[in-house]
Amino acid sequence: MDTKRTNLAVAADVTTAAELLRLAAAVGPHVAVLKTHADTVADWSDTTATALRVLADEHEFLIFEDRKFADIGNTVVAQAAGGVHRIVSWADIVNAHAVPGPGILSGLRVAVEAGGRPVGVLVLAQMSSAGNLATALPGYTPAAVAMAVAEPDLVFGFIAMEGGLGGDGCVCMTPGVKMGGGRDTLGQQYATPENVVGKAGSDVIIVGRGIYKADDPAAAAKEYRDAGWAAYERRCRGEQ
Amino acid sequence: MDTKRTNLAVAADVTTAAELLRLAAAVGPHVAVLKTHADTVADWSDTTATALRVLADEHEFLIFEDRKFADIGNTVVAQAAGGVHRIVSWADIVNAHAVPGPGILSGLRVAVEAGGRPVGVLVLAQMSSAGNLATALPGYTPAAVAMAVAEPDLVFGFIAMEGGLGGDGCVCMTPGVKMGGGRDTLGQQYATPENVVGKAGSDVIIVGRGIYKADDPAAAAKEYRDAGWAAYERRCRGEQ
Repeated sequence: MDTKRTNLAVAADVTTAAELLRLAAAVGPHVAVLKTHADTVADWSDTTATALRVLADEHEFLIFEDRKFADIGNTVVAQAAGGVHRIVSWADIVNAHAVPGPGILSGLRVAVEAGGRPVGVLVLAQMSSAGNLATALPGYTPAAVAMAVAEPDLVFGFIAMEGGLGGDGCVCMTPGVKMGGGRDTLGQQYATPENVVGKAGSDVIIVGRGIYKADDPAAAAKEYRDAGWAAYERRCRGEQ
Repeated sequence: MDTKRTNLAVAADVTTAAELLRLAAAVGPHVAVLKTHADTVADWSDTTATALRVLADEHEFLIFEDRKFADIGNTVVAQAAGGVHRIVSWADIVNAHAVPGPGILSGLRVAVEAGGRPVGVLVLAQMSSAGNLATALPGYTPAAVAMAVAEPDLVFGFIAMEGGLGGDGCVCMTPGVKMGGGRDTLGQQYATPENVVGKAGSDVIIVGRGIYKADDPAAAAKEYRDAGWAAYERRCRGEQ
């Protein structure tokens, strides 16, 4: 992230392998992370994963499969290591909801160890959608943080709307980022890069529709990269 | 359920299409519901879905894809309607976590309408795993129930450990059922059919390893079917 001078994650919410690989190639030079939903890609195959890994290694970004695991440990083992997607064989990062309890992280540990390559886990401590219970219930975020920090060699940070959760060394990635803010018709609420990184103290901005729906995704990625990194540098200099 | 005299759901936690179809054929005569994890089936294809539907129609059971949707509405549309699995094209039931807020149900509604066939939704109001936040946080279950009853033509019940949530007409399906009780090594906690249906007032028992890992899954399904239905009849007669 520091070497490449970017704290941008692009949410590749597309529905075909060709679109996914085209977007990854276009935004690859600008992103720290490419966030995928393999299960929305109609023609996903092992070839897709292989091609995505080539692009990730070429452009030095991490692949974050935003699976939001949310089942009991025994099921999560099979979901993360198996199925058509075999997520732990190609993703660098996956995430998990805290609601099933600590067994979900035990399950992910089993899956990652079976996969034989390093995969980091983010715990969803907060969400960006209207009326979400992580925000609405006072005890939710602290419980999610406690679960995460109990597994420091597996969990490296959070999906959250504010930085600082879990103490030093925990990365915060924030979804729902869009220049100008606003919301969609299905409950998503947007924040700007400046607010997310500067005011809320998050580390990585996750931008979806602001980039993948742009006429020129590469140019849009460059714009968000610059805005996100400038906000990060300002915060590091204590200007916000 | 009443016609077939069974309140048994079998969790088909297997990893190949052949195993899934073999299990479905074996337990089909005994179950009200077959619960699937399509994303743990390594060689899942449209053919698997078609073959499963043939068995479901022949033996008159419902297919419940236990996807535990847990994302924002816009993403859930694509996850439920698209991808390799195209869940709404073959499942009769899907489920959703409440943590993302009501937008997740709006998203599922869009996906189901796009699919053009009836699919009912269960909201996860409680879980069976140790330390789960639905049980640990006092406000979680009421919030999940409120979200569900606001969508009565989409949501027909709950995944929960106790019946009666949401009032009359809401179905309660309970996972983690096994003769003898106990727990696994990744946080799952088991309850018996008698406790789940009789004492806790649930309607449908979900049995996984007790059946699919049995030497004779059909015989085990028959045994659980009898135990579950007997407990249901006793409860209906007011004997528990």
